[in-house]
Amino acid sequence: MAVGEPVDLSEKYMRSLWLENQKLEFRTDTPNPVPAEGEALIRVHLAGICSTDLELLRGYYPFTGIPGHEFVGEVVSSPTDSTWVGKRVVGEINIACGVCSMCQSGFPRHCEQRKALGIHEWNGVFANYMTLPTANLHTVPGVIPDEVAVFTEPVAAACEILEQVEISRSDRVLIIGGGRLGQLVAQVMQTTGCNLQVIARHPKQRLLLSERNIQIVIEPQLAKNKYDVVVEATGTPDGFLRAREYVRPRGTIVLKSTYKGDSVTNLSSIVVNEVKLIGSRCGPFEPALQLLAAGLVDPLPLIDAMYPLEQGLMAFEHAARPGVLKVLSQSG
Amino acid sequence: MAVGEPVDLSEKYMRSLWLENQKLEFRTDTPNPVPAEGEALIRVHLAGICSTDLELLRGYYPFTGIPGHEFVGEVVSSPTDSTWVGKRVVGEINIACGVCSMCQSGFPRHCEQRKALGIHEWNGVFANYMTLPTANLHTVPGVIPDEVAVFTEPVAAACEILEQVEISRSDRVLIIGGGRLGQLVAQVMQTTGCNLQVIARHPKQRLLLSERNIQIVIEPQLAKNKYDVVVEATGTPDGFLRAREYVRPRGTIVLKSTYKGDSVTNLSSIVVNEVKLIGSRCGPFEPALQLLAAGLVDPLPLIDAMYPLEQGLMAFEHAARPGVLKVLSQSG
Repeated sequence: MAVGEPVDLSEKYMRSLWLENQKLEFRTDTPNPVPAEGEALIRVHLAGICSTDLELLRGYYPFTGIPGHEFVGEVVSSPTDSTWVGKRVVGEINIACGVCSMCQSGFPRHCEQRKALGIHEWNGVFANYMTLPTANLHTVPGVIPDEVAVFTEPVAAACEILEQVEISRSDRVLIIGGGRLGQLVAQVMQTTGCNLQVIARHPKQRLLLSERNIQIVIEPQLAKNKYDVVVEATGTPDGFLRAREYVRPRGTIVLKSTYKGDSVTNLSSIVVNEVKLIGSRCGPFEPALQLLAAGLVDPLPLIDAMYPLEQGLMAFEHAARPGVLKVLSQSG
Repeated sequence: MAVGEPVDLSEKYMRSLWLENQKLEFRTDTPNPVPAEGEALIRVHLAGICSTDLELLRGYYPFTGIPGHEFVGEVVSSPTDSTWVGKRVVGEINIACGVCSMCQSGFPRHCEQRKALGIHEWNGVFANYMTLPTANLHTVPGVIPDEVAVFTEPVAAACEILEQVEISRSDRVLIIGGGRLGQLVAQVMQTTGCNLQVIARHPKQRLLLSERNIQIVIEPQLAKNKYDVVVEATGTPDGFLRAREYVRPRGTIVLKSTYKGDSVTNLSSIVVNEVKLIGSRCGPFEPALQLLAAGLVDPLPLIDAMYPLEQGLMAFEHAARPGVLKVLSQSG
């Protein structure tokens, strides 16, 4: 269905993937969502499976409802602001209250009462339709195809690092992990012109990096305590311990991974070496869209497979296989 | 013995405390140290017992020799630069190589080959005499008595926080721990005019803070996720877990504690809340001496006891008792 085509919302039910008690199922009887004031109803074109979605299935966080937060779609109705209707959009995943101290301080992504698309108290994107506040939406420039736009959220998460850490051309930067997030972090970091190296395990991960002339390094050969910045993007608890080995005294470790379960550590070396550890989560959409529009970040080679929504369970199984990068779900 | 009085170095042996296999003993047969090129021989006046010294006894780090790194003394000889002779001095504890990449980058305190006074490959200050490179020495202004000057090193460690984190008057700052380091951190933080609160457990710790009009708070009543900056100065692994509870999203935790043994943790909340974690160790001596000279930091009330060097074992036992702040050892 093309952008701007009239939508038949006469059907009351839509298809969706539904998560409950860590079990995912395909449903055909989910009621169509109804946008509240300030919200838009969006027909989902494409949705991406992210590590967080896989972690939700493993119980990282208790969530019941439609998962998924990476999407590109088209606004079909917007009761409060009709100028959005027909626009192709991506959307920020944190739904903020607008009045708490974090919102008032300019950090709606850290709203104390926030809901999160497909993660916390807000149904997500593995469905035909979804809602989001129009304040969360960004129009997708025409030069960006759907298959690229669906990566805006994780590219924004990679861009967040540049909001938090000043990277100069002379900086030695190491990324640990060449997975779905690590690849995008590597591409974003490459735009700074820094001295970049990546530890990537799987052949496809390594191939994609070398095709972009990003240097791949092998862990046993790595110099200890030499990197100005180490980005931990492994998605596992041991990533931090490895990052600590490679960062130089007074250097910076950026933590990107959330994971279930504890790890055992001693933070004394962080004190002795005066290391700075920075937690990094969601990021700004505008720089991400600019990088995608300019072709400076190209996520297309990361796509391993695309499944129709009806085959969502297969899509999730595929995404969970070792070394797999991005699996998309097609709702339209 | 007054400053400038001629020194009898005809005796070949001095008294010292000696640490070996985590056991401390008083010795009378330690050879007098001989200053190498670029070093000064210093007669120790006073030495302070620090938590790191107590941790060394518990096996935090394997060290054999004379422990101790907080001192004030007098230069009795300086083969390469005689202008130091007779000067009353304090000294930085990291002995740097001057040629490694960290030294060349302006961070001699992080020298890759560094030795550390009374901690690593360099005999410390619980003795009659000690040596240090003259590059490490700072002259003590006449207005600062020995009992105050001996605190220069830990005050510098507190000042390090201000080198690493910008603290504004509107910042809500929480210090966890009112012990020997926490007290000095609190006094240094107070000079910024920030909104300061301290969690202190023991009555004397609380009394000293309230005498300086520093607000003491009780943990169960504390608001979670509200502080811009939390300084962890407990000396225990659980300090970090507590700091994480109180820091606001996008806030800063300063880690001051080194300790033996691992702790179990999950760093996901650091990622989700985009918290910045900064390890902080040794600091700059000049700002510390300025604060002490101006009376803006007053460590005198922290002194619980002073023992002659001969009673050093008792001094260490005293320092290890719960709630005790500073115990000094008098070498002169």
